[in-house]
Amino acid sequence: MKKPLILVTNDDGITSRGIRILVELMQELGQVVVVAPDSPQSGMGHAITVANTLRMFETDIFEGLKAYKCSGTPADCVKLAKHHVFDDHRPDLVVSGINHGSNTSISVLYSGTMSAAIEAAIEEIPSIGFSLCDYSPNADFDHIKKHILKITRLVLEKGLPKGSTLNVNLPARNQEPVKGIKLCRQARAKWQEQFDLRYDPHGQKYFWLAGEFVNLDQGEDNDEWAIKHNYVSVVPCQFDLTNYNTLDHLNSNWKEEL
Amino acid sequence: MKKPLILVTNDDGITSRGIRILVELMQELGQVVVVAPDSPQSGMGHAITVANTLRMFETDIFEGLKAYKCSGTPADCVKLAKHHVFDDHRPDLVVSGINHGSNTSISVLYSGTMSAAIEAAIEEIPSIGFSLCDYSPNADFDHIKKHILKITRLVLEKGLPKGSTLNVNLPARNQEPVKGIKLCRQARAKWQEQFDLRYDPHGQKYFWLAGEFVNLDQGEDNDEWAIKHNYVSVVPCQFDLTNYNTLDHLNSNWKEEL
Repeated sequence: MKKPLILVTNDDGITSRGIRILVELMQELGQVVVVAPDSPQSGMGHAITVANTLRMFETDIFEGLKAYKCSGTPADCVKLAKHHVFDDHRPDLVVSGINHGSNTSISVLYSGTMSAAIEAAIEEIPSIGFSLCDYSPNADFDHIKKHILKITRLVLEKGLPKGSTLNVNLPARNQEPVKGIKLCRQARAKWQEQFDLRYDPHGQKYFWLAGEFVNLDQGEDNDEWAIKHNYVSVVPCQFDLTNYNTLDHLNSNWKEEL
Repeated sequence: MKKPLILVTNDDGITSRGIRILVELMQELGQVVVVAPDSPQSGMGHAITVANTLRMFETDIFEGLKAYKCSGTPADCVKLAKHHVFDDHRPDLVVSGINHGSNTSISVLYSGTMSAAIEAAIEEIPSIGFSLCDYSPNADFDHIKKHILKITRLVLEKGLPKGSTLNVNLPARNQEPVKGIKLCRQARAKWQEQFDLRYDPHGQKYFWLAGEFVNLDQGEDNDEWAIKHNYVSVVPCQFDLTNYNTLDHLNSNWKEEL
């Protein structure tokens, strides 16, 4: 049987530990090609490079693998890979990560990791974004490897419904073993931002984005609950942003005014 | 009665024609404050500035108005406005645009214009993103003004259900008058990208993102259809990306394997 062709990308950049571990894991499952940003792209959301040029160069940092570093965003990497690495042959799977830090709940919107996965979903290529809920540069990844392999095998075997991708978050290592894998919805939560106001050496103001995560969700069927209780969370995501409930509401309440 | 407080932002930058027209229109409806990017931010999706500092300076380009130019993305502008312009007083409405170019269907994901509106929705502030489907720098805006005022008045009077925002696209001027306003869902469509491969003066490769828009949707209830038929399209959008159909599907088909 032909090995599946797997594109690996991320948003922390091609030299991050997370992508190296994901590449090793994916080599157990298929033929791996890497196209990833040449520098960190965290918080890039679904940004694409439209008003600037893009660079992409081959690199030998992954022994024995075809790998490219790209000056663009994670979404750019998926687009460029499709056209200039695979020559319009489609990979069987796109995986993104392993992100150094959580992408649960509302963070999915800001996540470069997930934008690569969503970009693949638009192209109807099965895809998964993986994030470890640990920001430490020395984070331990060993406890999550078997869960990443399990989820990826399921996607390769069973596929995913068109128009969807998976947002997978994995708990940081702690005393207890991971309890298992939970299928979830996105938690209702937000960032309570604070901006740190400082002055540069020339006396001019500048700001640093800071703030804390506020979970507004009381449910037990969401990704925040899962991570807090030491489960791997799997949230199927879509790129149709239409709010159909609001559409119904407006159709009832605005119709006569329009 | 106290005039509503309206925050105006955009993604084309604070000196663009589109924002100037939106500011004029909003002054008919309320007290306007402008916080907008100091340079074009098209295609930024829901990017935020986490790994860099932000600048924000007052500017007098809008006569008699409080206005600030910000070095960040549209989402950054909304966040910064909330904390350092309104001092945590909330505006009654956030409007973004008028974007020079379409943000129908899948473009909503890449749109800086809409990321500002979505950012406001996360904060439960009613919000609207406006885009004119005309990329010409000399685009005519006169034919769409009354529609922008009508939609904005409706939102100010009736509010919007929590967790939703409006993606409003307006047809380019043509021989016929605009037919009216349609409540729509996001069309199923995608960009068929092509990258233009070129060589710089030093012989190194670079790429330009190009490509064409492909409408895959046969329906008549979507934003692409509306714009094509000379209607203003209004799509209510949400920031919960959970694909509940796929969640049901996985709950049936994966449960025993997890």
